[in-house]
Amino acid sequence: MNLIDEIKKRSVHVDEGIREMLPIKHPEELYKAARYLPDAGGKRLRPAAVILTAEAVGSDLQTVLPAAVAVELVHNFTLMHDDIMDRDDVRRGMPAAHVKWGEPGAILAGDTLYSRAFEIITRMDNDPARIVKCIYILARTCTEICEGQWLDVEFEHKDMVSEKEYIQMVEKKTAVLYGAACKIGALLGGSSLEVADQMYEFGRMIGIAFQIYDDVLDIVTPEETLGKVRGSDIMEGKKTLIAIHALNSGVQLEIFGKGKASRGQLEDAIRQLEESGSIEYARNVALAHIREGKAKLDVLGDSEAKEILLAIADYMIERSY
Amino acid sequence: MNLIDEIKKRSVHVDEGIREMLPIKHPEELYKAARYLPDAGGKRLRPAAVILTAEAVGSDLQTVLPAAVAVELVHNFTLMHDDIMDRDDVRRGMPAAHVKWGEPGAILAGDTLYSRAFEIITRMDNDPARIVKCIYILARTCTEICEGQWLDVEFEHKDMVSEKEYIQMVEKKTAVLYGAACKIGALLGGSSLEVADQMYEFGRMIGIAFQIYDDVLDIVTPEETLGKVRGSDIMEGKKTLIAIHALNSGVQLEIFGKGKASRGQLEDAIRQLEESGSIEYARNVALAHIREGKAKLDVLGDSEAKEILLAIADYMIERSY
Repeated sequence: MNLIDEIKKRSVHVDEGIREMLPIKHPEELYKAARYLPDAGGKRLRPAAVILTAEAVGSDLQTVLPAAVAVELVHNFTLMHDDIMDRDDVRRGMPAAHVKWGEPGAILAGDTLYSRAFEIITRMDNDPARIVKCIYILARTCTEICEGQWLDVEFEHKDMVSEKEYIQMVEKKTAVLYGAACKIGALLGGSSLEVADQMYEFGRMIGIAFQIYDDVLDIVTPEETLGKVRGSDIMEGKKTLIAIHALNSGVQLEIFGKGKASRGQLEDAIRQLEESGSIEYARNVALAHIREGKAKLDVLGDSEAKEILLAIADYMIERSY
Repeated sequence: MNLIDEIKKRSVHVDEGIREMLPIKHPEELYKAARYLPDAGGKRLRPAAVILTAEAVGSDLQTVLPAAVAVELVHNFTLMHDDIMDRDDVRRGMPAAHVKWGEPGAILAGDTLYSRAFEIITRMDNDPARIVKCIYILARTCTEICEGQWLDVEFEHKDMVSEKEYIQMVEKKTAVLYGAACKIGALLGGSSLEVADQMYEFGRMIGIAFQIYDDVLDIVTPEETLGKVRGSDIMEGKKTLIAIHALNSGVQLEIFGKGKASRGQLEDAIRQLEESGSIEYARNVALAHIREGKAKLDVLGDSEAKEILLAIADYMIERSY
């Protein structure tokens, strides 16, 4: 089984669904702005998770496609607003939406993605009680993502962040949307609430691992693959799990939060993090979450979809970018 | 019947509902920012409309209170994001949210109000099919509000706007939320879809009138009541119905869009608008919408709630601020 092919097989329908369910209409420029990020691609891991959990409980793509599209639009909405807040001017190798349409334009385009996502999920052909449940999950998840983003911004102004606080932030900012994707796919696919709850835990666990491993990649990935300066998190003083472990181990990172560093200084810092075992530590915490997540799939009978979900879990900490 | 008292009787429950359904919890500063505008008051006309339509179809306040709170939170979310976009630094006599918490804070607080509104409405004790329908109405309305705000911003850069374009903008930016409030109240109150559709039209019509009359008030209200300079719309070059009528009648407003004017120049401009009949014209268009809206209530049997809804309609164009 080729994981990328399996995801691609499903994501072409998601791409088509986005074009169909978020058509460009009057006022056209608003909808062009709203479609800008979703059309720019991305791995489509979250909608794939919706579809695969549905398949794994015996349902199919067509049954849950609108929910998969809704989850992807919510993801893109968060990216668009986060980029304004974090003043990130590049996304997916292109100018961010607020660079092209201004901040008001990007705020509105994000809001449109948000409400359109909820519109789409209400139009599904499914048991109304299950739809209400799924909308609740999606809405609660959006609230938690706001909390996570708030904590992330708050951490920038804090001297120290504990490992527990960091994991909680990552959970809210990133992991809960994976959890929601898997639970919604299962519920709309007809599963019991018990199975759906296990799917949520699967998604949440691999989502936490995804984010922790992202921080590892920032340090270990060659710059030509990363597309930005290696170790930028260290220079920015980001309180990643690696940085927290290092600081707790008494490592003195000279360039931490200094904003810039020479190549030599950066390599020294990375060597320090290797010697203190901080990179290895983060990698192991990510791995532990993947293992715990995969175990949640034990409630499922054997299926191709289950195999793919397991492969996605492994991919979270094996990918190179 | 005293209209203000009747609204107050219901809005105390809305105030309490907001405190209960949007509690201040971790991370506290995010929730304080989210509660800032809703706690600052406002007329609570939209949640009153939810409650009164429910009462008018034979239901009661407790049955629809969460929906009333959700509609009020959506309204406050739009105010919060609009103030960022329009760079309005004062709201309800206080510094705007983005002045207190910065733009990132206000974007996130607005997003939180948005998702919390949807969370709240999914937790209602009602027929799931009706809840799904109401969430659809609320979500579609939010999308339309984004479209309306986009058009409003676009109009600033256009030389001319037609009356039709103006009414469409006002409809989306302001009126559809009144329509949604009334339709949601009716549906959750147990009405037929036919009656609910009439309630939507009632809300939409009085919402259009509300906004048109707002523009009239900007010109005819004494400054001590208005709390800002009289005729500021003229100086800002806002394409209100009054301005559109005046321009179409060949009136040359020297200070239109000039940003500032002396008191004498302003009084001259207002006199010109009186002589061209532009103020009277806008007042009449508002009145026609009120009449058409009130007629939609004919499908309802007599009740105190119906009387109050009729009084709200009249209030839209009789209020002095």
